Amino acid sequence: MEIKEFYDYNKEIAKFKAAYALVEWDMRTKMPPKAAMDRSEVAGKLARTMFDMETSSKMAAFVEYFNRPKINEKLNEIDRRNVYLVTKEYRRISAIPPDKFEKFTIACSNGENVWQEAKAESNFSKFKPYLEEIVGYLKEFVEYYGYEENKYDALLEDYEPSMTTKDLNKIIAGLKAELVPFIKDLNSKGNAPDTSILKGNFDKNSQEKLSREVLDAMGYDFKGGRIDETVHPFTIGMGFGDVRITTNYHSDDMTSALFSTMHEGGHALYEQGVSEAYKWMPIHDGASMGIHESQSRTWENLVGRSRPFWNFFFPKLCEIFPQFKNVSSDEFYKAINLTKPSLIRIESDEVTYNLHIMVRFEIEEAIINDRIKVADLPDAWNEKMKAYLGIDVPDDAHGMLQDVHWSGGQLGYFPSYMLGNLYASQFFFTAKKEIPNLDSEIANGNLKVLREWQREKIHKFGALYDPKDLLIKVTGEPLNHKFFMNYVREKFSKIYF
Amino acid sequence: MEIKEFYDYNKEIAKFKAAYALVEWDMRTKMPPKAAMDRSEVAGKLARTMFDMETSSKMAAFVEYFNRPKINEKLNEIDRRNVYLVTKEYRRISAIPPDKFEKFTIACSNGENVWQEAKAESNFSKFKPYLEEIVGYLKEFVEYYGYEENKYDALLEDYEPSMTTKDLNKIIAGLKAELVPFIKDLNSKGNAPDTSILKGNFDKNSQEKLSREVLDAMGYDFKGGRIDETVHPFTIGMGFGDVRITTNYHSDDMTSALFSTMHEGGHALYEQGVSEAYKWMPIHDGASMGIHESQSRTWENLVGRSRPFWNFFFPKLCEIFPQFKNVSSDEFYKAINLTKPSLIRIESDEVTYNLHIMVRFEIEEAIINDRIKVADLPDAWNEKMKAYLGIDVPDDAHGMLQDVHWSGGQLGYFPSYMLGNLYASQFFFTAKKEIPNLDSEIANGNLKVLREWQREKIHKFGALYDPKDLLIKVTGEPLNHKFFMNYVREKFSKIYF
Repeated sequence: MEIKEFYDYNKEIAKFKAAYALVEWDMRTKMPPKAAMDRSEVAGKLARTMFDMETSSKMAAFVEYFNRPKINEKLNEIDRRNVYLVTKEYRRISAIPPDKFEKFTIACSNGENVWQEAKAESNFSKFKPYLEEIVGYLKEFVEYYGYEENKYDALLEDYEPSMTTKDLNKIIAGLKAELVPFIKDLNSKGNAPDTSILKGNFDKNSQEKLSREVLDAMGYDFKGGRIDETVHPFTIGMGFGDVRITTNYHSDDMTSALFSTMHEGGHALYEQGVSEAYKWMPIHDGASMGIHESQSRTWENLVGRSRPFWNFFFPKLCEIFPQFKNVSSDEFYKAINLTKPSLIRIESDEVTYNLHIMVRFEIEEAIINDRIKVADLPDAWNEKMKAYLGIDVPDDAHGMLQDVHWSGGQLGYFPSYMLGNLYASQFFFTAKKEIPNLDSEIANGNLKVLREWQREKIHKFGALYDPKDLLIKVTGEPLNHKFFMNYVREKFSKIYF
Repeated sequence: MEIKEFYDYNKEIAKFKAAYALVEWDMRTKMPPKAAMDRSEVAGKLARTMFDMETSSKMAAFVEYFNRPKINEKLNEIDRRNVYLVTKEYRRISAIPPDKFEKFTIACSNGENVWQEAKAESNFSKFKPYLEEIVGYLKEFVEYYGYEENKYDALLEDYEPSMTTKDLNKIIAGLKAELVPFIKDLNSKGNAPDTSILKGNFDKNSQEKLSREVLDAMGYDFKGGRIDETVHPFTIGMGFGDVRITTNYHSDDMTSALFSTMHEGGHALYEQGVSEAYKWMPIHDGASMGIHESQSRTWENLVGRSRPFWNFFFPKLCEIFPQFKNVSSDEFYKAINLTKPSLIRIESDEVTYNLHIMVRFEIEEAIINDRIKVADLPDAWNEKMKAYLGIDVPDDAHGMLQDVHWSGGQLGYFPSYMLGNLYASQFFFTAKKEIPNLDSEIANGNLKVLREWQREKIHKFGALYDPKDLLIKVTGEPLNHKFFMNYVREKFSKIYF
């Protein structure tokens, strides 16, 4: 058996993946409403085709052969990693009995529908039986997947490979101990910036122009992508040379689209930067959800909400939206950096965001390990929100019903968001060390110098390394919450005190 | 074996067809340029998947079983027609040895590339060997397909089922005898309208607005479709509830986009109007290329270039493009109805268009039957252009190299365009008989009355009937060129004399 056959077979799967991604992009951007029902069946057919290929006897033969020690040790680094990723995916997919997985898929599909209603009505009891069913399946799956120390590790693996609950608990303990009092200090003793200057009436075409300008400055390649409008912004890659992003323009607030464009642009730079030599391969992907999120957070927060960036970009903003000519760039910079404990994760700022994730992670981990029942979820949620963020949750719609993830069976996903923030600070610290005058480069609009650094250090490798190894390779040390704490402490102390 | 299994299997194929159509639409409208090479491979994979399913042993078993006389006679009309269409396709595809068909596909792909260069250089000798190879394959295929009277029939079948060369020769003889002298009369004795009033500078957004207004008036369902911009306008259906069109806005001439929108809109109304009960079935399609073209031509010419339509639409035009306020609707109507023998088919008017098709049909038919060699093609072309249109061809770029069809192996395609014109007149004659005051309905902007008639008489049946049968069912008689001749004679006599 030649490795070429293995690659050829995976390329065929990758072609269906590209078609599937296009169908998904179209469903969320261009598709006329009458097509929705039937197009889902088309997407389902493509997904099923991929599933069949990924679990075929042919795939089993590849997995068996290329994992024979004497064969495997002769593979080069890239081949071995591709075999590893395919093997992992094969074993995970084939671990679950197909009829059980199908039932789980249906439970999630129903769960999402009921969750929407339950959220609208703030009615947890409506959602409860569905969530119980979903959690029930996940507890079974955990046994099928297997784990070493903690059942939750088996779920984490899907989103952040080789990260464990133990690792997370350790990092969270350190972070929480510093972050919670820091936020209390900011809010009790600091001076919150005036955000009223951000209000206005912002024409959509001008907002789009602003989005395109910032993407261009970031080095996003429009010849290998495009930007469109959707309700929920996202980034989607569909094979080499096509990484598309979307954003959402709000007429009363231009910052929302701008920062979501920079966020999605950060994801897109990652995918555009993966080595062309890896195209059609399993490693033509990100290292993990957390590493992916670190790239988006870097551009959204560490660049987009930084003082140097607005030296460069404020004049451009004023050109497009002359209302800001009455404001100083410093007032604007402060206004976009309001930090305040709040109820809703996706509206929270970069300081408080991680606390929202801790609440979710701790609850998920307790549920999977049978320390909390689904029925007790709202109480657990509300207690933790009070303890970490100091706020009272008025109802479940603004509490544990706010996110879609659990209704879709995606337990284990949330930590990636926090990891993204932490990785981002740690990477950025290294970038500042390695790029002379990074701040002044950014202030001069030379953002591409950062993109080049990311490309050389992170992007081009795709999924060649495990996230843990990549982090050490780039920054010289394992994950450390100090980088994040130092960053927010320095930045927000200046703004608030 | 149950007919449901047959339908289920065909539905799976139809899902891949929908995905393929989306990939094609995206390639021509939205895809960033860097994705082009790899996306072709995705399209190729989907095409191959469909081919494999259409020629599988499972499909063979369906074809064998449902064509057994005792089984077939018990099927209802719809089931029998679906079985018939699938059987026909199965037999055609499996008639050609796969390796031969693959070589043909490559020859066409190379042919198209070389044709583009040859056309640019007006260099027939460059294209000649490629066309010879393509024609060579088609002559072989004709033998594999089989035919009764004329080899060309075997190619026609792909585009206009059950139409024969004999039928075409008969209809063309009658048409040519009347049309050629009529055109000579118009041009020697008539007064050509002044088209200078059509020139101007037309903003793209306003043209798009005009296109949307006309589609809306026609009854195009935007909830089941959309309009985008491309170089070459086209219509594409991708399953139930999604029929998209494109147009091309020229800044110096708004008529080009408007009439191409009405043309594509006519195609789209057809596909939007097929009975929902047929979705995912082989009969969820048009009856033939010619019938499809008749619907587009009806809206482009019989409505769009008619006097009543401009009673309704001229005020709307003037609202969007005030320059036309200096012109009368009658002057405008005449200007868009200039008829003049010209070199290029796709720029020709509704009177002379059919002559361009006759030239091509007669040459194709002679080539397949070995009465002309590929080497003699330019001479044959130029002679016929002189004889029918009375014009001299200055070079092959403006002669036999102008169309893409031959380079793609699509001999047998051209007659559909002419048939579309003829069907359109014959259908429209019946519509006028059956809809009281159709002209005044159109003049009042009530275009939907025509769409409803088309839907009830033509659209909803999809591919349930052969085009010949459909024509008789709707109009009460077989194809007759008199309807077209009467139409152009009456209309253009008024304009020119």
